[in-house]
Amino acid sequence: MNSLQAVFNIAEICAQHGITDVILSPGSRSAPLTLAFARHPAYRGKLRVVPDERAAAFIGLGIAQATRRPVALVCTSGTAGLNYAPAVAEAYFQQLPLLVLTADRPPEWIDQLDGQTIRQRDLYGAHAKGTFDFPADTSHADAKWHGERLLNEAINLAQAFPAGPVQVNVPLREPFYPKPGEEMGYEQQVKIMHEDQTNATLPPAEILTLRQLLRQASRVLVVAGQQPSNPGLTAALHEFAAARQVPVVADVITNLEGVAALRKQDVFLAGLPKEQKDALRPDLLITFGQSLISKSLKLFLRDAAPAQHWHIQPAGPVADTFRSLTRIIRVQPAAFFQQLAVFETKDYNRSGGSNPSLSESVQKVIVGSNSILSAKAETGSNASATTELAITWPRADAAATQFLTNFFAAKGQPFNEFTAFYQTLAALPDATALHLANSMAVRYANIIGLPAGQQIEVFANRGTSGIDGCNSTAVGAALAQPERPVVLLTGDVAFFYDRNAFWHNYPTPNLRVVLFNNHGGGIFRLIDGPRQQPELDEFFETTQALTAENLCRDFQLRYLPVASFAELEAALPVFFAAESGAAVLEVFTDSKTNAAFFEDYRKAAKAAFA
Amino acid sequence: MNSLQAVFNIAEICAQHGITDVILSPGSRSAPLTLAFARHPAYRGKLRVVPDERAAAFIGLGIAQATRRPVALVCTSGTAGLNYAPAVAEAYFQQLPLLVLTADRPPEWIDQLDGQTIRQRDLYGAHAKGTFDFPADTSHADAKWHGERLLNEAINLAQAFPAGPVQVNVPLREPFYPKPGEEMGYEQQVKIMHEDQTNATLPPAEILTLRQLLRQASRVLVVAGQQPSNPGLTAALHEFAAARQVPVVADVITNLEGVAALRKQDVFLAGLPKEQKDALRPDLLITFGQSLISKSLKLFLRDAAPAQHWHIQPAGPVADTFRSLTRIIRVQPAAFFQQLAVFETKDYNRSGGSNPSLSESVQKVIVGSNSILSAKAETGSNASATTELAITWPRADAAATQFLTNFFAAKGQPFNEFTAFYQTLAALPDATALHLANSMAVRYANIIGLPAGQQIEVFANRGTSGIDGCNSTAVGAALAQPERPVVLLTGDVAFFYDRNAFWHNYPTPNLRVVLFNNHGGGIFRLIDGPRQQPELDEFFETTQALTAENLCRDFQLRYLPVASFAELEAALPVFFAAESGAAVLEVFTDSKTNAAFFEDYRKAAKAAFA
Repeated sequence: MNSLQAVFNIAEICAQHGITDVILSPGSRSAPLTLAFARHPAYRGKLRVVPDERAAAFIGLGIAQATRRPVALVCTSGTAGLNYAPAVAEAYFQQLPLLVLTADRPPEWIDQLDGQTIRQRDLYGAHAKGTFDFPADTSHADAKWHGERLLNEAINLAQAFPAGPVQVNVPLREPFYPKPGEEMGYEQQVKIMHEDQTNATLPPAEILTLRQLLRQASRVLVVAGQQPSNPGLTAALHEFAAARQVPVVADVITNLEGVAALRKQDVFLAGLPKEQKDALRPDLLITFGQSLISKSLKLFLRDAAPAQHWHIQPAGPVADTFRSLTRIIRVQPAAFFQQLAVFETKDYNRSGGSNPSLSESVQKVIVGSNSILSAKAETGSNASATTELAITWPRADAAATQFLTNFFAAKGQPFNEFTAFYQTLAALPDATALHLANSMAVRYANIIGLPAGQQIEVFANRGTSGIDGCNSTAVGAALAQPERPVVLLTGDVAFFYDRNAFWHNYPTPNLRVVLFNNHGGGIFRLIDGPRQQPELDEFFETTQALTAENLCRDFQLRYLPVASFAELEAALPVFFAAESGAAVLEVFTDSKTNAAFFEDYRKAAKAAFA
Repeated sequence: MNSLQAVFNIAEICAQHGITDVILSPGSRSAPLTLAFARHPAYRGKLRVVPDERAAAFIGLGIAQATRRPVALVCTSGTAGLNYAPAVAEAYFQQLPLLVLTADRPPEWIDQLDGQTIRQRDLYGAHAKGTFDFPADTSHADAKWHGERLLNEAINLAQAFPAGPVQVNVPLREPFYPKPGEEMGYEQQVKIMHEDQTNATLPPAEILTLRQLLRQASRVLVVAGQQPSNPGLTAALHEFAAARQVPVVADVITNLEGVAALRKQDVFLAGLPKEQKDALRPDLLITFGQSLISKSLKLFLRDAAPAQHWHIQPAGPVADTFRSLTRIIRVQPAAFFQQLAVFETKDYNRSGGSNPSLSESVQKVIVGSNSILSAKAETGSNASATTELAITWPRADAAATQFLTNFFAAKGQPFNEFTAFYQTLAALPDATALHLANSMAVRYANIIGLPAGQQIEVFANRGTSGIDGCNSTAVGAALAQPERPVVLLTGDVAFFYDRNAFWHNYPTPNLRVVLFNNHGGGIFRLIDGPRQQPELDEFFETTQALTAENLCRDFQLRYLPVASFAELEAALPVFFAAESGAAVLEVFTDSKTNAAFFEDYRKAAKAAFA
């Protein structure tokens, strides 16, 4: 088969696998791939061209994040593909399916001093799920079969749980273009191998075992990691938590709206004295999902050292995040919670009795007078039907919520980014796709929490926690779901780092960027360590003078600068109004004021829970 | 040994190895490395902080290119190091020494869902000369020795010929900072292993053999690839070429000012009919250095298939760029040319006689009337002392020079980037470090050539020919040699791609950027293939609307826009004046006009040499 025909069939196979989103970056070597997608009826009018490959790959990642479906990236030979590497690593750890098609010279011309030629085989090393070499010559029928087969394998591998990025390196010889008058078609009869996804179920005996272990554990805690919105899981977890009286702890990136989860752990855990922490300590920890934001929660769980830690994950490597992992359960979390939701009478009677009664320590928590937990405690009428943790965790959470409300309501605050963040979160439109940039944005949001009942879905690049693609990911989301408000909350270093996110020709009228500009890496002034060093200003915070004004001019973004609470309050409704179009709300604050205010917050939180 | 002490000693070892330039990007995990360099007396006031790691690495590369000395890069954990990858690949293929210090979590915390954690071991795969794992724990004396030894090995490896990038991955456990009041010092007695560089020499027998082969070949041609300025080589090559009457062909990136080389091959080779090309064909081709720009020259040499092709390179892999390589000679090119410069009488008599007389074909070239070569020919008095190629190549080159002069002098040209480029090159200050961006800038410059006698040194990222770091490389050059004018000629896609090159706090008053803005990848309109496709506008040229005005405002660069020959002529002296400071001269042209004009040029060149 003609080599151009083989490349055109790549687009056909992608289309038949249901891949709808393709991001191209311009190039000469990649021309056959570009033409293949540009001329295919499935992609006509849908292809997007983004010149900076670093941004292009993160835009693709943002689309995959929004749609949970594979996105194809196409780039030319040379370092183009290396500029994809940060997004590929993020996709790997965030488990997002990307099909990375890197055009290449044919193997005989590698290392022969030709331009735009590097060693592209296995370009992403340990950060791709797989790498495939498309045949340079498909004139032999076996080679045609090989090329079509490996493309199927690559697409299936990208989507198989846990999803991730896959590279297909495509060596291309000239001619790159059809001859004048040569009509290139697509073969409908290309090889297609679909891979069906299945769900594992727990065998009955295993369910019995787990139920028994669960019943024996009196201090059960569920901690959810990052995961996309999943109504089935939410329902099952809600049922499980209610039936078993198990508290669920969830960071802001867990997307568990609908579960009565506890979310203020960042507020109360840091300051809580050891004996009160003991009242929160699980002996059976159940986790699912990916990473946590809250460092306090991580440290607490590592310190708590539960006797058992079960992690629920259908497949793939499992992290021992708290150094206490004892059991990996290979099912979908929704199936697990559904199957273990009910205390069965049979089970229950066999153990001889009543629910575990309240321990001495929880009594202390409830009736004692020296702790925030006890201060808020009421000796509830249903106490006998609950486990200790089902009282202590909600109580701490409620106290933290009340503390935060009071804290932010205090008069006479200087204008600062933490309070501005609080004000902004409260003003988010319903059904927002909320993108939280690394590094302070996602931390502030985790402390403050989201307004309830607004169907806000949260996204953050916590696979690698880089600042390198936060804008682009939000741009991808805005392109993928044009009917939905997409709001990015970010700091100035992440924002300007990824300024090429906006360098393309596609409108994103639903995109809103709130840029908290403190003219440097303000995070370094907030965390212990660097802020005590004489090198803070020059080598950590790294003052930078940019504002977004010129950038907004460059990219036709509406620009709203604010520098006071009143200005911010006035700007927010205008900014979030649907008719505003793509806009940047730049919130100017002073780094030293922010640091002092955040230190006040930390002291107040510590005092409140001491 | 205390782990912080071990990290501080990294800076000490770098200092004792004479590394003077370090580029940091801010981070938390990398804090111990940052402090180690920031507090070391050798680096005080000399460290530079660049937030975007992609730009940081290319700035480091630009410094290494200017100084030919190793530059250290320091970044934090996670995708930070992946953003170095494009520059690392360029350094690998351009053979520039970079010491890449990537801070990492300790091995036990990899893949445990901690933030900013990827798989950093061997991060650059096939594009680093080596990769080293610094020990996470140096409390054991053997581990201290290991850490210090491998750092020495890494620094030596980066510099050993061919030089290149080396990664040292540095896992760091907390605490990252000295305790309050803890004084960190540097151990003067750290382990230092210097590696002496040596020069290979040809054994006498080998010299005899090569001389004999050289004498037997009547059609000898030297073609130089990219290489840095090298006065010793220039002198030896000049002597060799004069003594042996061998023409030397050199692209604009060969830095052979002082050698009477032929540089207009791009002008005359494309159009020359086959029989005239035969008059230029070598039977012994001698090459050295890295890549060529001229595609016409490459194709000509591949087609010419000389019986012998010698490549002179002291060590490292050798490319068979023209598919005719027969002998690799492992010495410095300067040594080779010096040792073979003289026809020794002894040698000469042994072969029985006179220089090869002019062949029939060269007589035809010289006296015929249907070719540009013959048209310009004079039956020179020294004809009998020369080989055929020593007549034909200079003649073609002279004709091409004359053709170009006439071509650009033509009245009534529309304003276009090719002529604007010609005008700009003619105005360059003496002793300029000229940076040519990929992709059209370096091609235009290769066609037009440089003004003679101005000591202009040429730099271009032709290791991988990427557009991703052209600005940053020039910024690095400007920082490295502040007393020297650094001029970057670039197109709009490369320029805006790498706009974060300017995002740092270091003045570059000697930097001048001439930005040829045709609002898209104009190259695709100039090359055959894409320009015939209906997808040209949308998927290849990819129109982009930016101008540099807002960027110049953001980064305090003087901004001079021009859109006509008269404006350009008026602006050039102002722009290049030493007192102008860092500035961007933006030359606005129309892509279609450029394409039409360049097509006129191609037709005219073809006709002139047909």
